[in-house]
Amino acid sequence: MWCQSCKEEYEEEDAGTCKECYEEASETEEELKREIDELRSRFNFLRLPSPTTLDAASAPHSDLLLHAIPSSSSPGAGGDADAGRNPETPAVPAHRFILASRSPVFRAMLENEMEESRSGVIKIYDVSYDVLRTFVHYMYTAEALLDEQMASDLLVLAEKYEVKQLKTYCEKLLTSKVNNDNAIVHYAFAHRHSAKQLLEASLSVVMDNMSTLADREEYKELVEKDPRLVVEIYEAYLNRQVNTAAGKDADCSSRK
Amino acid sequence: MWCQSCKEEYEEEDAGTCKECYEEASETEEELKREIDELRSRFNFLRLPSPTTLDAASAPHSDLLLHAIPSSSSPGAGGDADAGRNPETPAVPAHRFILASRSPVFRAMLENEMEESRSGVIKIYDVSYDVLRTFVHYMYTAEALLDEQMASDLLVLAEKYEVKQLKTYCEKLLTSKVNNDNAIVHYAFAHRHSAKQLLEASLSVVMDNMSTLADREEYKELVEKDPRLVVEIYEAYLNRQVNTAAGKDADCSSRK
Repeated sequence: MWCQSCKEEYEEEDAGTCKECYEEASETEEELKREIDELRSRFNFLRLPSPTTLDAASAPHSDLLLHAIPSSSSPGAGGDADAGRNPETPAVPAHRFILASRSPVFRAMLENEMEESRSGVIKIYDVSYDVLRTFVHYMYTAEALLDEQMASDLLVLAEKYEVKQLKTYCEKLLTSKVNNDNAIVHYAFAHRHSAKQLLEASLSVVMDNMSTLADREEYKELVEKDPRLVVEIYEAYLNRQVNTAAGKDADCSSRK
Repeated sequence: MWCQSCKEEYEEEDAGTCKECYEEASETEEELKREIDELRSRFNFLRLPSPTTLDAASAPHSDLLLHAIPSSSSPGAGGDADAGRNPETPAVPAHRFILASRSPVFRAMLENEMEESRSGVIKIYDVSYDVLRTFVHYMYTAEALLDEQMASDLLVLAEKYEVKQLKTYCEKLLTSKVNNDNAIVHYAFAHRHSAKQLLEASLSVVMDNMSTLADREEYKELVEKDPRLVVEIYEAYLNRQVNTAAGKDADCSSRK
C-alpha cells in the first residue's frame, strides 16, 4: 500500500489509519492551525507597547513610577547583582490601569487611599532594576526572555504581586532546567514560594540521586538552615520505596 | 487491516497512512493543542477589564471620556437607531494609553496638543452609543458579539480610527453573511470602505445572479447613486465570461 501522507510504500504490519481517519485528521490539523493564527493575531492586538523601552519622561500617558530598591542587606536573596553598586537606578514608568489589571496587590494599593496611590510612586523592594524592568515589560506584553536567574527572581516578584500567569511561566522554565546539580537548591526554592510543579520535579531528581545526596554542599546547608525540608525528602523517598515494593509484590502475585 | 485511530477494519483500497505518519500526525495534533492552550492563557492575561461595563465616575484610573454623537441629519447612515431619540447618552470612560496603543488616529490626537488631549473628552461623530460602547469594549478585550448591523457600523468606525484588527474581524463576519438578497448593498458598502474580502465575496454572488440583477431595487438605487460601481459589476462579469470561455477552449483543445 501507499501512504497518502509520506507517499511511500508500506507493508500491512506498518499500517496506520484508514483513509477516512486520515482525511479527518488532516482537516483537524488545518482547523487547529487556523485557530492558532486567529489567536495569535488577537494576542498581538492586545499586546501593549512596553513603557520600559522609554525613559520615565517620554513614556506616553504614564501615571506611575516604579523604583527598584535592591536588598543591600542580604545580597543574593533576590539575585540582585547590582545591589549597592548602583543604588540610584532610573525609575521604570508604568500605568496604574495596567498594573491594577494584572495584579490584585497593585490594584488594592492603587485603588485605595494609600501613599503609593497619592504619590504615583511605588518602591519595589529586594529587586534589581533589570528584574523590575522585565517584570513591567511582561505586564504589557506577556513576554519575557528568561535565563534561570531571571526566572527565579521574577517568580519571587510574581508571587509577591500575585501575577499568576508570570509565576507559572517562570516555574515552567525552572522546571525544565532541573538537574542533579541544582535539584536541592530548586527544591528549597520551590518550597519557599509554593511552586508545586517545580517542587515535584526537583524532589524527583533528588530522590533519583539519593546515594550521593549527603555528600552535597547544598544538602549540608539545607540541613543547617531548614532541616524540616530534609526530613520531607527522606519521607518522600521512603514513601516511594514502599510504593515501589508494593508494586513489585502485586506484579509478582499476578504472575503466579 | 485495522485502523489505529477509529479501531475499525478496512480494506486495502481504503488505506490512509502508514503507522509512522499516523504517529507523527498524532504528535503534531497534541503539539498544536498545547500551543493553543498556551496562547489562550497568554491572551487571557492580556485581556483588560473593559471600562464600558462601568459608568464614567467609577471606572478606575480612567483619564478620557468618549461621547457618541449620532448623525441626526442622515438617519440610517451609521445604523444609529437611537439618533435623535436619545441625544444625551452617557459618556463612555476609557484610558488614553489604551486607545493610543490600539489606534494611530487616537495616538496622534492624544499625543499632540489637540483640544481632545487637553480636555480629555473626545466626540465620536455619526455613531450610536451602543456602537461606541462595543468599539471601546473591543479595544480592551479583542472581543465583540456582532450581528450584521453592528459589524457594518463597527467596520466604519474601525476604518476611521485605523483599528485594522477590528476591521478585519467585522469584515469576516459580513463576508460570511453575504447572500443574493444583500449582495448589492454589501458590494457598495465594501467599495466605500475598501473591504477587499467582502468586495470579492459580494461581487461573486452578484455575478452568480446576473439574470435577476436589473429587477432589484438596490440595483436601481445604485445606478442612481453610483453608476460607476454598476459599471464595475458589468466589467467584472464580462471579464469572467471571457475567462470561462478561454478555459473551455483550452479544455477542448487539450482533449483533442
